Amino acid sequence: MIDVYSWPTPNGHKVHIMLEECGYKLGKDWIAHPVDIGAGDQFKPDFLAISPNNKIPAIQDPQGPDGKPIHLFESGAILLYLAAKTGKFLPKSTRGKYEVLQWLMFQMGGLGPLLGQNHHFRIYAPEKIDYAITRYTNEAKRLYGVIDHQLKDNPYIAGKSYSIADIAIFPWTRNWKNQGIDINEYPNFKRWFEMVSERPAVKRGVEVLTALRKPLHDDKAREQLFGSSQYQKRK
Amino acid sequence: MIDVYSWPTPNGHKVHIMLEECGYKLGKDWIAHPVDIGAGDQFKPDFLAISPNNKIPAIQDPQGPDGKPIHLFESGAILLYLAAKTGKFLPKSTRGKYEVLQWLMFQMGGLGPLLGQNHHFRIYAPEKIDYAITRYTNEAKRLYGVIDHQLKDNPYIAGKSYSIADIAIFPWTRNWKNQGIDINEYPNFKRWFEMVSERPAVKRGVEVLTALRKPLHDDKAREQLFGSSQYQKRK
Repeated sequence: MIDVYSWPTPNGHKVHIMLEECGYKLGKDWIAHPVDIGAGDQFKPDFLAISPNNKIPAIQDPQGPDGKPIHLFESGAILLYLAAKTGKFLPKSTRGKYEVLQWLMFQMGGLGPLLGQNHHFRIYAPEKIDYAITRYTNEAKRLYGVIDHQLKDNPYIAGKSYSIADIAIFPWTRNWKNQGIDINEYPNFKRWFEMVSERPAVKRGVEVLTALRKPLHDDKAREQLFGSSQYQKRK
Repeated sequence: MIDVYSWPTPNGHKVHIMLEECGYKLGKDWIAHPVDIGAGDQFKPDFLAISPNNKIPAIQDPQGPDGKPIHLFESGAILLYLAAKTGKFLPKSTRGKYEVLQWLMFQMGGLGPLLGQNHHFRIYAPEKIDYAITRYTNEAKRLYGVIDHQLKDNPYIAGKSYSIADIAIFPWTRNWKNQGIDINEYPNFKRWFEMVSERPAVKRGVEVLTALRKPLHDDKAREQLFGSSQYQKRK
């Protein structure tokens, strides 16, 4: 049983989708332990011990590479681990593997963090700051343009096959409406988005823990996510 | 001869340092082609063909995995490629490899992008926005705290050995003064920072292309980096 410490955010969805895509069954092969980031669960010592950056998701696999338990943080590393463990969604050829790795890194280093800032300034920040909203809305449009261009000649992000690059990118794009994106301006993206949305494992993955999430607009959640409590100096 | 299309920014430095650490000699085994991001070189079609996200660095290796040329974008993917090619700075054991991968992803997904926003609002943005400056200064302090904690019991970021995680993180921390960080508050980080700074390959790496960089405060550079030209719709 793989333990997943997670929450229904884009980075959480990535791992939930990957596990379902790999054929692991929720409740039988893996379990999702909620880490309610609006309630401050990410700062608890038990979670910090396996996720030193206080971020979800993290996993613990009792059957690690040497047969002993292993725990991992960072969704990108977890996707690579599960791909290696199952032999799925990462090409065997070195060339194919780097094609996927580039786009996984594009998601990790660009799409995810910058759309995260987009969400912050468009939805969560207590003040509306025009400069920041414009900056991150423009950046979202630029990033969707990059994806759309890549999908012009490729059915999937990294070429002919569905891979961890698709699994990493998809959850960040589900919220395109709130990001200031008009999906019709990106027809190749739209085609891909609708295709990925229809995958049964994706449908199951995005539902994991979702019933537990409350709106993030109350004061306590705002304090946990954006207030001073997250910046307390570590002992 | 490995062709590197790059600029003396943290993400550029990563690859320059890695090549030097791996024993490749600048001018003999690899060449740095300047992509002046202040002059808009990143939008030229030749560069876009190998770097679809318009970002430096990108590389072309005439001796790819199958003996044919390969090109790669995204610094994190390039570090993994060079580590695999040379057998250096990424542990052979699966467990050791994931220890490094987690921290590489931490740099790619957190430290780099968030310090990038810190730089933007603290140094480059045309208006001083208190909310954003506070947000990204606090986030920088939190991230340095995570690194400092990790280095308490580990000489290097991912354990006992210098790895691509150190090579990825170091260039982003060179500018700690401008990020609102007091290095003396992070004694483990300070010890590591000084140790890594003294490595001959690091000293060589951070000098590559540096003489070409002009201050980014003039209007043309500002337009290329932050203005509307970067958001023109792709054909």
